[in-house]
Amino acid sequence: MKRKDFFKTSSLAFLGTALTPSISANSRTGKRSFQTAKNIIFLVSDGMSNGTLSMADLLMQRQYGKRSTWLTLYDEHLVSRALMDTASANSFVTDSAAASSSWGGGIRVNNGALNVNADGSENKPILQKFKDAGKSVGCVTTVPITHATPAGFCVTSKKRDDQSEIALKYLSLRFDVMMGGGLEYFSKEKRSDRQDVFKLFKDSGFAVVRDKKAMLELDHNKPVLGVFHEAGLPFALDAAHQPEKSNLPTLAEMTGKAISILSRNQKGFVLQVEGGKVDWAAHANDCGALLYDQLAFDEAVKVAFDFAQKDKETLVVITTDHGNANPGLFYGSKANSNFDTIIKHRFTNEWILNGVNSQTSATLLRDRVMEAQGWILTDEEARELLAYYVHLSDEGLYNPRHLPFKRFAQLQEKHTSVGWGSMDHSGDYVELAMYGPGRELLQPFIKNYELHQLMLDATAIKHYS
Amino acid sequence: MKRKDFFKTSSLAFLGTALTPSISANSRTGKRSFQTAKNIIFLVSDGMSNGTLSMADLLMQRQYGKRSTWLTLYDEHLVSRALMDTASANSFVTDSAAASSSWGGGIRVNNGALNVNADGSENKPILQKFKDAGKSVGCVTTVPITHATPAGFCVTSKKRDDQSEIALKYLSLRFDVMMGGGLEYFSKEKRSDRQDVFKLFKDSGFAVVRDKKAMLELDHNKPVLGVFHEAGLPFALDAAHQPEKSNLPTLAEMTGKAISILSRNQKGFVLQVEGGKVDWAAHANDCGALLYDQLAFDEAVKVAFDFAQKDKETLVVITTDHGNANPGLFYGSKANSNFDTIIKHRFTNEWILNGVNSQTSATLLRDRVMEAQGWILTDEEARELLAYYVHLSDEGLYNPRHLPFKRFAQLQEKHTSVGWGSMDHSGDYVELAMYGPGRELLQPFIKNYELHQLMLDATAIKHYS
Repeated sequence: MKRKDFFKTSSLAFLGTALTPSISANSRTGKRSFQTAKNIIFLVSDGMSNGTLSMADLLMQRQYGKRSTWLTLYDEHLVSRALMDTASANSFVTDSAAASSSWGGGIRVNNGALNVNADGSENKPILQKFKDAGKSVGCVTTVPITHATPAGFCVTSKKRDDQSEIALKYLSLRFDVMMGGGLEYFSKEKRSDRQDVFKLFKDSGFAVVRDKKAMLELDHNKPVLGVFHEAGLPFALDAAHQPEKSNLPTLAEMTGKAISILSRNQKGFVLQVEGGKVDWAAHANDCGALLYDQLAFDEAVKVAFDFAQKDKETLVVITTDHGNANPGLFYGSKANSNFDTIIKHRFTNEWILNGVNSQTSATLLRDRVMEAQGWILTDEEARELLAYYVHLSDEGLYNPRHLPFKRFAQLQEKHTSVGWGSMDHSGDYVELAMYGPGRELLQPFIKNYELHQLMLDATAIKHYS
Repeated sequence: MKRKDFFKTSSLAFLGTALTPSISANSRTGKRSFQTAKNIIFLVSDGMSNGTLSMADLLMQRQYGKRSTWLTLYDEHLVSRALMDTASANSFVTDSAAASSSWGGGIRVNNGALNVNADGSENKPILQKFKDAGKSVGCVTTVPITHATPAGFCVTSKKRDDQSEIALKYLSLRFDVMMGGGLEYFSKEKRSDRQDVFKLFKDSGFAVVRDKKAMLELDHNKPVLGVFHEAGLPFALDAAHQPEKSNLPTLAEMTGKAISILSRNQKGFVLQVEGGKVDWAAHANDCGALLYDQLAFDEAVKVAFDFAQKDKETLVVITTDHGNANPGLFYGSKANSNFDTIIKHRFTNEWILNGVNSQTSATLLRDRVMEAQGWILTDEEARELLAYYVHLSDEGLYNPRHLPFKRFAQLQEKHTSVGWGSMDHSGDYVELAMYGPGRELLQPFIKNYELHQLMLDATAIKHYS
């Protein structure tokens, strides 16, 4: 099939009717030769718009005098790059479940679904395929390990929200390393069905770890479940300034431990690493949370790259599942000095707003902003924000208490010059980079679902096993 | 010099103290071999954020069933790509004058300046270098031909705003093709000094053309000045639906004619093509203006590519000078159908808002929105917009009448799902692609000023002539 014909077909298939995989595989691998990858490390900064990548790299330079690992790989000519179309089956703008399913199952599904098509049929998730092929597999993330992005590589589920059920699916899958947050889907006290899922994992032969120390000490061949926190782990910025959080692992630490465990398998491994709270920060227009979690993700990229550079048999994929909020450092005479104030931030907007209630005084809120981020909230602004606390609800996915994140970000923008286009995902094409054997397979522009076959091809795993 | 050392140096030089050009040239060209380019066509979609590129490509697919030329080049594996750092000497967020100067003069200058450094010293603009080397040179744009982006390739000026003076500088430079808008800087009636600059050009041996027909009929060896409109040319969307605008050339038509004139020179040519009103549309958060002008730019890319593909001696550079407003198609259950309504737009927000005054009735404004864009403005919304017209001023660079563009875009977003992060430039790293001989010189990540030396290297013009 000529490239032009393939292009035409894929245009027609734009709204998610994926090409038959064998065709796209043929067109991609037909006459190419490449070294097979034994391992894959697939790193996802969830919900990373172009501005997030750019500003995190700038912050890194301003604060530490060097570039992010991601962009250093470009400077060093070590990676292949693509732009990626992130659409789902039913929308130009994907959610994380459909996005991860496109990679995980090779076929675009509707938003909200995990590898389940509109007709109810299911697509076998890629980590099941790799497990069947004898490789070790796993996921680490800063959000619940049952959340959309890891789940899209592991399970099928009509609804991403069935996280209690997804926890049980993980039990039967017996993957080698699954670590992140999501205590409420494993703990007897928190689950609505009162099952002690931690006990089920232990009884089934898993090592279950609940803090950084126990995780770092892991030293045996059991499969590992690590659950370190309810919901997501704290934002990297907040964790760095709260001694009581020091027993929580960073994404880079989880990544390093996961690699050390998975790489014992002579047949290789496949690991997904998700910087999940980059997305949550973007949903909250929380610039310190966003940029420092992007940098925490970047540290995980470094861990993966350092391993792959020595190992020489590992394909490293670095990307995001979709843009979110399209933040930017925007023009103004104080853009530079405003941006540099972020270096002094000690706590996120979430930390500030979660520590406030309807009884808080304007003076106390102003002190809190000064302590956390070093800028002056006016008395009038403080009163305006406190007015939001009179009626708080407990609904909603990302901002259950309906805290005034949006208004806070607008007030903060005067001091940081960082602005936001939305509080939700965008349909922008996104950046993708690959390092190591198999990167020759990457096209300059790809659709998200094409990565599924690419990963199978790169490792020479039989198609659609 | 090792790549790593170069990287360290350039990090320190981050705020615009450019590397000595010979070093970066050596590190870049040291041991490489490449075919020399005879011609360069340098295409700039001014102020194009990542979302603009993405949404224009999506609109192209939805409306015409094929991709944009820019991204088709990726699909066809025909280009090298880079991310580009667009900072100026004094800001992480550049203006168009400093951005064009970085390419044009090879050294970052402060925002607002054209190839004049903070100490008053000047950097020789690249089209002067190419002209000295015997090549034909020119610029075409949809904004005044004296505007920042063309001017940065042509002249030195402390202030970009001295457009009347820049028009006179063009006279003495005698470049081969200069075409765009900016009547007010050439016409006796409009200039404050009452000079008839058109006459000066004619008397000096230029062919002066003022409409599309005269432009297309150009058929001699005189240098050409084309000035088709006051200020910028109309937005592509508005022009397409106004028969009285049919005697104005499109950017693609100007590009085609410029190439046909310039390519007569056996020593080659260098042409800058600017889609300048993409930036103006972003400043106004005007989504139909933005996307259809991006597609009009894309048609110019196609003209350039088609020439270069046959010619085989032309380096084509496709990029932007900076992001602007970071627009995006944002998540929502109606994102697809909302986005598709843009296909039905007949006129821009500017056309709507410029046709209104303080005497306009709410009913008439609502009819106007329906006629122009097919959506229902509520009576309340119409009254809110009309309230802005009570006090209008004539100041400001991009929105002299202070029309309610921002509020209009917010109301429109409910119908298009297109949102905006700002009404000004962003510091995002931007997309760049190169086709043809010399593209081997492109690094995966570059700083804007490095393009200057790259263009000289690609054409084997003596450095810093």
